[in-house]
Amino acid sequence: MTTAEKASPRDRLLDAAARLSYRDGVSIGIEALCREAGVSKRSMYQLFDSKDEMLAASLERRMPGYQARLTHPDPASATPRESILYVFEQLEKRSVEPGYHGCPYLAVLVEVKDPEHPASVVAREAKDVLLSTFRTAAERGGARDPELLARQLLLVFDGASARAGARVEHLDDGLTTTTVTALLDASGMR
Amino acid sequence: MTTAEKASPRDRLLDAAARLSYRDGVSIGIEALCREAGVSKRSMYQLFDSKDEMLAASLERRMPGYQARLTHPDPASATPRESILYVFEQLEKRSVEPGYHGCPYLAVLVEVKDPEHPASVVAREAKDVLLSTFRTAAERGGARDPELLARQLLLVFDGASARAGARVEHLDDGLTTTTVTALLDASGMR
Repeated sequence: MTTAEKASPRDRLLDAAARLSYRDGVSIGIEALCREAGVSKRSMYQLFDSKDEMLAASLERRMPGYQARLTHPDPASATPRESILYVFEQLEKRSVEPGYHGCPYLAVLVEVKDPEHPASVVAREAKDVLLSTFRTAAERGGARDPELLARQLLLVFDGASARAGARVEHLDDGLTTTTVTALLDASGMR
Repeated sequence: MTTAEKASPRDRLLDAAARLSYRDGVSIGIEALCREAGVSKRSMYQLFDSKDEMLAASLERRMPGYQARLTHPDPASATPRESILYVFEQLEKRSVEPGYHGCPYLAVLVEVKDPEHPASVVAREAKDVLLSTFRTAAERGGARDPELLARQLLLVFDGASARAGARVEHLDDGLTTTTVTALLDASGMR
Protein backbone atom coordinates (compact mmCIF):
# COMPACT_ATOMS: atom_id res chain seq x y z
CA MET A 1 0.00 0.00 0.00
CA THR A 2 1.54 3.30 -1.05
CA THR A 3 -1.18 5.91 -0.63
CA ALA A 4 -4.65 5.92 0.91
CA GLU A 5 -6.15 6.21 -2.58
CA LYS A 6 -4.53 2.98 -3.71
CA ALA A 7 -5.58 0.94 -0.66
CA SER A 8 -7.96 -1.91 -1.46
CA PRO A 9 -11.54 -1.85 -0.11
CA ARG A 10 -10.49 -4.62 2.29
CA ASP A 11 -7.58 -2.59 3.67
CA ARG A 12 -9.69 0.56 3.88
CA LEU A 13 -12.32 -1.34 5.88
CA LEU A 14 -9.70 -2.79 8.21
CA ASP A 15 -8.13 0.62 8.76
CA ALA A 16 -11.52 2.20 9.44
CA ALA A 17 -12.49 -0.62 11.83
CA ALA A 18 -9.25 -0.24 13.78
CA ARG A 19 -9.48 3.56 13.89
CA LEU A 20 -13.17 3.90 14.77
CA SER A 21 -13.34 1.03 17.26
CA TYR A 22 -10.30 2.41 19.06
CA ARG A 23 -11.75 5.90 19.20
CA ASP A 24 -15.43 5.14 19.82
CA GLY A 25 -15.56 1.53 21.07
CA VAL A 26 -16.45 -1.79 19.47
CA SER A 27 -20.14 -0.96 19.23
CA ILE A 28 -19.58 1.37 16.26
CA GLY A 29 -22.20 0.87 13.55
CA ILE A 30 -21.61 -0.80 10.21
CA GLU A 31 -22.93 2.28 8.36
CA ALA A 32 -20.35 4.53 10.00
CA LEU A 33 -17.60 2.01 9.26
CA CYS A 34 -18.50 1.70 5.58
CA ARG A 35 -18.83 5.48 5.25
CA GLU A 36 -15.42 6.03 6.83
CA ALA A 37 -13.89 3.41 4.54
CA GLY A 38 -15.72 4.61 1.42
CA VAL A 39 -16.97 1.07 0.78
CA SER A 40 -20.57 -0.05 0.27
CA LYS A 41 -22.25 -2.35 2.78
CA ARG A 42 -22.75 -4.86 0.00
CA SER A 43 -19.01 -4.90 -0.73
CA MET A 44 -18.25 -5.19 2.96
CA TYR A 45 -20.39 -8.31 3.28
CA GLN A 46 -18.66 -9.78 0.24
CA LEU A 47 -15.32 -9.34 1.99
CA PHE A 48 -16.25 -10.25 5.58
CA ASP A 49 -18.82 -12.59 7.10
CA SER A 50 -19.68 -10.11 9.85
CA LYS A 51 -18.60 -6.94 11.63
CA ASP A 52 -17.15 -9.13 14.35
CA GLU A 53 -14.90 -10.92 11.83
CA MET A 54 -13.82 -7.58 10.34
CA LEU A 55 -12.98 -6.23 13.78
CA ALA A 56 -10.93 -9.33 14.59
CA ALA A 57 -9.07 -9.05 11.28
CA SER A 58 -8.33 -5.37 11.94
CA LEU A 59 -6.82 -6.21 15.33
CA GLU A 60 -4.79 -9.04 13.86
CA ARG A 61 -3.43 -6.80 11.13
CA ARG A 62 -2.13 -4.29 13.68
CA MET A 63 -0.39 -6.88 15.83
CA PRO A 64 3.06 -6.90 14.14
CA GLY A 65 3.31 -3.10 14.44
CA TYR A 66 2.14 -3.20 18.05
CA GLN A 67 4.74 -5.80 18.94
CA ALA A 68 7.51 -4.03 17.03
CA ARG A 69 6.88 -0.83 19.00
CA LEU A 70 7.34 -2.70 22.26
CA THR A 71 10.55 -4.46 21.21
CA HIS A 72 13.90 -2.93 22.16
CA PRO A 73 15.57 -1.55 18.99
CA ASP A 74 18.78 -3.43 19.80
CA PRO A 75 17.54 -6.67 21.35
CA ALA A 76 20.94 -8.40 21.08
CA SER A 77 22.72 -5.86 23.29
CA ALA A 78 19.86 -4.99 25.66
CA THR A 79 19.90 -6.65 29.07
CA PRO A 80 16.68 -8.46 30.06
CA ARG A 81 15.96 -5.64 32.50
CA GLU A 82 16.46 -3.03 29.78
CA SER A 83 14.18 -4.87 27.36
CA ILE A 84 11.40 -5.01 30.00
CA LEU A 85 11.80 -1.36 30.97
CA TYR A 86 11.75 -0.40 27.28
CA VAL A 87 8.17 -1.69 27.00
CA PHE A 88 7.07 0.63 29.80
CA GLU A 89 9.04 3.60 28.48
CA GLN A 90 7.16 3.19 25.21
CA LEU A 91 3.85 2.96 27.06
CA GLU A 92 4.67 6.14 28.96
CA LYS A 93 5.58 7.96 25.74
CA ARG A 94 2.48 6.90 23.85
CA SER A 95 0.18 7.71 26.76
CA VAL A 96 0.63 11.44 26.26
CA GLU A 97 -0.12 11.36 22.53
CA PRO A 98 -3.41 12.98 21.47
CA GLY A 99 -6.12 10.40 20.86
CA TYR A 100 -4.52 7.85 23.19
CA HIS A 101 -7.17 5.52 24.64
CA GLY A 102 -4.96 2.82 26.15
CA CYS A 103 -3.98 -0.58 24.79
CA PRO A 104 -6.39 -1.45 21.95
CA TYR A 105 -6.31 -5.14 22.83
CA LEU A 106 -7.16 -4.58 26.48
CA ALA A 107 -9.97 -2.21 25.48
CA VAL A 108 -11.50 -4.91 23.28
CA LEU A 109 -11.22 -7.48 26.07
CA VAL A 110 -13.03 -5.12 28.47
CA GLU A 111 -15.67 -4.00 25.96
CA VAL A 112 -16.49 -7.38 24.43
CA LYS A 113 -17.66 -9.40 27.42
CA ASP A 114 -17.72 -12.66 25.45
CA PRO A 115 -14.33 -14.48 25.48
CA GLU A 116 -15.37 -16.45 22.38
CA HIS A 117 -15.96 -13.34 20.26
CA PRO A 118 -13.45 -13.40 17.34
CA ALA A 119 -12.01 -10.04 18.43
CA SER A 120 -11.52 -11.29 22.01
CA VAL A 121 -9.61 -14.28 20.68
CA VAL A 122 -7.17 -12.03 18.78
CA ALA A 123 -6.85 -9.59 21.70
CA ARG A 124 -6.06 -12.45 24.09
CA GLU A 125 -3.38 -13.64 21.67
CA ALA A 126 -1.74 -10.19 21.65
CA LYS A 127 -1.71 -10.17 25.46
CA ASP A 128 -0.28 -13.70 25.58
CA VAL A 129 2.58 -12.66 23.30
CA LEU A 130 3.49 -9.82 25.66
CA LEU A 131 3.25 -12.14 28.67
CA SER A 132 5.57 -14.60 26.99
CA THR A 133 8.05 -11.83 26.07
CA PHE A 134 8.14 -10.75 29.72
CA ARG A 135 8.52 -14.36 30.89
CA THR A 136 11.48 -14.99 28.57
CA ALA A 137 13.23 -11.81 29.73
CA ALA A 138 12.53 -12.71 33.37
CA GLU A 139 14.08 -16.14 32.84
CA ARG A 140 17.16 -14.68 31.17
CA GLY A 141 17.49 -12.12 33.96
CA GLY A 142 17.42 -14.75 36.69
CA ALA A 143 14.10 -13.83 38.32
CA ARG A 144 13.19 -16.25 41.11
CA ASP A 145 9.73 -16.87 39.62
CA PRO A 146 9.68 -15.72 35.97
CA GLU A 147 6.02 -16.63 35.44
CA LEU A 148 4.93 -14.63 38.51
CA LEU A 149 7.03 -11.63 37.49
CA ALA A 150 5.62 -11.70 33.94
CA ARG A 151 2.05 -11.76 35.29
CA GLN A 152 2.84 -8.87 37.66
CA LEU A 153 4.26 -6.82 34.78
CA LEU A 154 1.08 -7.37 32.78
CA LEU A 155 -1.03 -6.15 35.71
CA VAL A 156 0.99 -2.92 35.69
CA PHE A 157 0.92 -2.63 31.89
CA ASP A 158 -2.82 -3.15 31.60
CA GLY A 159 -3.69 -1.11 34.68
CA ALA A 160 -1.58 1.77 33.41
CA SER A 161 -2.90 1.64 29.87
CA ALA A 162 -6.53 1.47 31.05
CA ARG A 163 -6.10 4.32 33.51
CA ALA A 164 -4.05 6.56 31.23
CA GLY A 165 -6.35 5.77 28.30
CA ALA A 166 -9.33 6.88 30.41
CA ARG A 167 -7.44 10.01 31.52
CA VAL A 168 -7.62 9.14 35.22
CA GLU A 169 -3.85 8.73 35.41
CA HIS A 170 -0.79 10.19 33.72
CA LEU A 171 2.35 8.16 33.16
CA ASP A 172 4.76 10.82 31.94
CA ASP A 173 6.45 11.15 35.33
CA GLY A 174 7.72 7.57 35.02
CA LEU A 175 4.99 5.95 37.13
CA THR A 176 5.20 2.57 35.41
CA THR A 177 9.00 2.38 35.15
CA THR A 178 9.27 3.20 38.88
CA THR A 179 6.68 0.54 39.70
CA VAL A 180 8.26 -2.04 37.43
CA THR A 181 11.74 -1.36 38.84
CA ALA A 182 10.42 -2.15 42.34
CA LEU A 183 8.93 -5.43 41.07
CA LEU A 184 12.10 -6.38 39.16
CA ASP A 185 14.18 -5.74 42.27
CA ALA A 186 11.78 -7.75 44.44
CA SER A 187 11.96 -10.66 42.00
CA GLY A 188 15.72 -10.91 42.41
CA MET A 189 16.24 -10.06 38.75
CA ARG A 190 19.62 -8.73 37.70
CA MET B 1 -37.01 -1.66 49.21
CA THR B 2 -38.09 -5.03 50.58
CA THR B 3 -38.89 -7.19 47.55
CA ALA B 4 -38.36 -6.77 43.82
CA GLU B 5 -42.15 -6.40 43.40
CA LYS B 6 -42.25 -3.40 45.70
CA ALA B 7 -39.32 -1.55 44.10
CA SER B 8 -40.26 1.70 42.41
CA PRO B 9 -39.96 2.05 38.62
CA ARG B 10 -36.96 4.31 39.23
CA ASP B 11 -35.17 1.69 41.35
CA ARG B 12 -36.06 -1.09 38.91
CA LEU B 13 -34.57 0.95 36.07
CA LEU B 14 -31.41 1.68 38.05
CA ASP B 15 -31.00 -1.98 38.96
CA ALA B 16 -31.54 -3.06 35.37
CA ALA B 17 -29.08 -0.45 34.09
CA ALA B 18 -26.41 -1.57 36.55
CA ARG B 19 -26.98 -5.27 35.85
CA LEU B 20 -27.20 -5.12 32.05
CA SER B 21 -24.41 -2.57 31.49
CA TYR B 22 -22.10 -4.62 33.71
CA ARG B 23 -22.92 -7.83 31.87
CA ASP B 24 -23.20 -6.57 28.29
CA GLY B 25 -21.49 -3.17 28.21
CA VAL B 26 -22.71 0.42 28.24
CA SER B 27 -24.08 0.24 24.69
CA ILE B 28 -27.12 -1.81 25.84
CA GLY B 29 -30.32 -0.58 24.19
CA ILE B 30 -33.05 1.35 25.92
CA GLU B 31 -35.66 -1.22 24.84
CA ALA B 32 -33.75 -4.04 26.55
CA LEU B 33 -33.32 -1.91 29.66
CA CYS B 34 -37.01 -1.03 29.92
CA ARG B 35 -38.01 -4.64 29.25
CA GLU B 36 -35.67 -5.90 32.00
CA ALA B 37 -37.03 -3.30 34.42
CA GLY B 38 -40.66 -3.82 33.44
CA VAL B 39 -41.05 -0.08 32.85
CA SER B 40 -42.35 1.65 29.72
CA LYS B 41 -40.05 3.87 27.66
CA ARG B 42 -42.41 6.73 28.28
CA SER B 43 -42.09 6.30 32.06
CA MET B 44 -38.35 6.01 31.74
CA TYR B 45 -38.10 9.37 29.99
CA GLN B 46 -40.30 10.89 32.69
CA LEU B 47 -37.78 9.72 35.29
CA PHE B 48 -34.50 10.34 33.46
CA ASP B 49 -33.35 12.86 30.88
CA SER B 50 -31.41 10.23 28.94
CA LYS B 51 -29.94 6.74 29.08
CA ASP B 52 -26.59 8.35 29.94
CA GLU B 53 -28.08 10.03 33.01
CA MET B 54 -29.74 6.79 34.07
CA LEU B 55 -26.45 4.91 33.71
CA ALA B 56 -24.63 7.52 35.79
CA ALA B 57 -27.32 7.35 38.49
CA SER B 58 -27.09 3.54 38.56
CA LEU B 59 -23.32 3.72 39.11
CA GLU B 60 -23.71 6.33 41.81
CA ARG B 61 -26.31 4.26 43.62
CA ARG B 62 -23.92 1.30 43.82
CA MET B 63 -20.99 3.31 45.15
CA PRO B 64 -21.67 2.98 48.92
CA GLY B 65 -21.93 -0.81 48.60
CA TYR B 66 -18.79 -0.97 46.45
CA GLN B 67 -16.82 1.05 48.98
CA ALA B 68 -18.18 -0.89 51.96
CA ARG B 69 -16.99 -4.17 50.40
CA LEU B 70 -13.46 -2.80 50.12
CA THR B 71 -13.31 -1.45 53.66
CA HIS B 72 -11.75 -3.59 56.40
CA PRO B 73 -14.52 -4.83 58.73
CA ASP B 74 -12.57 -3.61 61.77
CA PRO B 75 -10.91 -0.40 60.53
CA ALA B 76 -9.98 0.76 64.04
CA SER B 77 -7.81 -2.27 64.78
CA ALA B 78 -6.49 -2.96 61.27
CA THR B 79 -2.96 -1.74 60.52
CA PRO B 80 -2.60 0.43 57.39
CA ARG B 81 -0.93 -2.53 55.65
CA GLU B 82 -3.81 -4.83 56.60
CA SER B 83 -6.40 -2.37 55.37
CA ILE B 84 -4.65 -2.12 51.98
CA LEU B 85 -4.20 -5.87 51.64
CA TYR B 86 -7.86 -6.35 52.56
CA VAL B 87 -8.89 -4.48 49.39
CA PHE B 88 -6.90 -6.92 47.27
CA GLU B 89 -8.10 -9.99 49.17
CA GLN B 90 -11.66 -8.89 48.38
CA LEU B 91 -10.74 -8.36 44.73
CA GLU B 92 -9.23 -11.84 44.57
CA LYS B 93 -12.33 -13.38 46.16
CA ARG B 94 -14.80 -11.62 43.89
CA SER B 95 -12.79 -12.39 40.77
CA VAL B 96 -13.74 -16.07 40.90
CA GLU B 97 -17.47 -15.43 41.29
CA PRO B 98 -19.63 -16.35 38.28
CA GLY B 99 -20.53 -13.33 36.20
CA TYR B 100 -17.48 -11.35 37.34
CA HIS B 101 -16.45 -8.83 34.67
CA GLY B 102 -13.98 -6.72 36.64
CA CYS B 103 -14.47 -3.38 38.37
CA PRO B 104 -17.69 -1.81 37.02
CA TYR B 105 -16.24 1.70 37.28
CA LEU B 106 -13.09 0.84 35.34
CA ALA B 107 -15.18 -0.92 32.69
CA VAL B 108 -17.26 2.23 32.21
CA LEU B 109 -14.12 4.38 31.94
CA VAL B 110 -12.72 2.07 29.25
CA GLU B 111 -15.99 1.69 27.34
CA VAL B 112 -17.12 5.31 27.40
CA LYS B 113 -14.30 7.14 25.67
CA ASP B 114 -15.66 10.57 26.57
CA PRO B 115 -14.40 11.82 29.98
CA GLU B 116 -17.33 14.28 30.14
CA HIS B 117 -19.98 11.55 29.85
CA PRO B 118 -22.08 11.57 33.08
CA ALA B 119 -21.19 7.91 33.73
CA SER B 120 -17.45 8.64 33.30
CA VAL B 121 -17.70 11.42 35.86
CA VAL B 122 -19.22 9.06 38.45
CA ALA B 123 -16.74 6.28 37.62
CA ARG B 124 -13.80 8.67 38.03
CA GLU B 125 -15.18 9.70 41.40
CA ALA B 126 -15.31 6.06 42.56
CA LYS B 127 -11.70 5.59 41.47
CA ASP B 128 -10.62 8.80 43.21
CA VAL B 129 -12.17 7.60 46.47
CA LEU B 130 -10.14 4.38 46.30
CA LEU B 131 -6.97 6.34 45.49
CA SER B 132 -7.56 8.58 48.46
CA THR B 133 -8.21 5.58 50.75
CA PHE B 134 -4.88 4.07 49.66
CA ARG B 135 -3.08 7.40 50.11
CA THR B 136 -4.39 7.83 53.66
CA ALA B 137 -3.33 4.28 54.60
CA ALA B 138 0.09 4.84 52.98
CA GLU B 139 0.56 8.04 55.02
CA ARG B 140 -0.45 6.30 58.25
CA GLY B 141 1.90 3.41 57.46
CA GLY B 142 4.88 5.68 56.91
CA ALA B 143 5.38 5.11 53.16
CA ARG B 144 8.19 7.29 51.80
CA ASP B 145 5.94 8.63 49.01
CA PRO B 146 2.26 7.96 49.90
CA GLU B 147 0.93 9.49 46.66
CA LEU B 148 3.22 7.34 44.51
CA LEU B 149 2.33 4.18 46.44
CA ALA B 150 -1.40 4.90 46.15
CA ARG B 151 -1.07 5.35 42.37
CA GLN B 152 0.92 2.11 42.09
CA LEU B 153 -1.75 0.23 44.03
CA LEU B 154 -4.43 1.52 41.66
CA LEU B 155 -2.41 0.30 38.66
CA VAL B 156 -2.40 -3.18 40.20
CA PHE B 157 -6.07 -3.00 41.21
CA ASP B 158 -7.29 -1.86 37.80
CA GLY B 159 -4.92 -4.10 35.82
CA ALA B 160 -6.02 -7.10 37.86
CA SER B 161 -9.71 -6.33 37.65
CA ALA B 162 -9.54 -5.73 33.88
CA ARG B 163 -7.54 -8.90 33.23
CA ALA B 164 -9.53 -11.14 35.59
CA GLY B 165 -12.79 -9.65 34.34
CA ALA B 166 -11.78 -10.50 30.77
CA ARG B 167 -10.71 -14.00 31.87
CA VAL B 168 -7.11 -13.56 30.72
CA GLU B 169 -5.85 -13.79 34.29
CA HIS B 170 -6.86 -15.50 37.52
CA LEU B 171 -6.20 -13.95 40.90
CA ASP B 172 -7.13 -16.79 43.22
CA ASP B 173 -3.51 -17.80 43.80
CA GLY B 174 -2.89 -14.45 45.53
CA LEU B 175 -1.36 -12.68 42.51
CA THR B 176 -2.40 -9.20 43.61
CA THR B 177 -1.60 -9.59 47.32
CA THR B 178 1.89 -10.87 46.40
CA THR B 179 2.40 -7.95 44.02
CA VAL B 180 1.08 -5.39 46.48
CA THR B 181 3.25 -6.80 49.29
CA ALA B 182 6.34 -6.22 47.12
CA LEU B 183 5.26 -2.62 46.47
CA LEU B 184 4.45 -1.95 50.14
CA ASP B 185 7.88 -3.30 51.14
CA ALA B 186 9.61 -1.19 48.47
CA SER B 187 7.79 1.92 49.69
CA GLY B 188 9.23 1.51 53.18
CA MET B 189 5.78 1.04 54.63
CA ARG B 190 5.50 -0.69 58.00
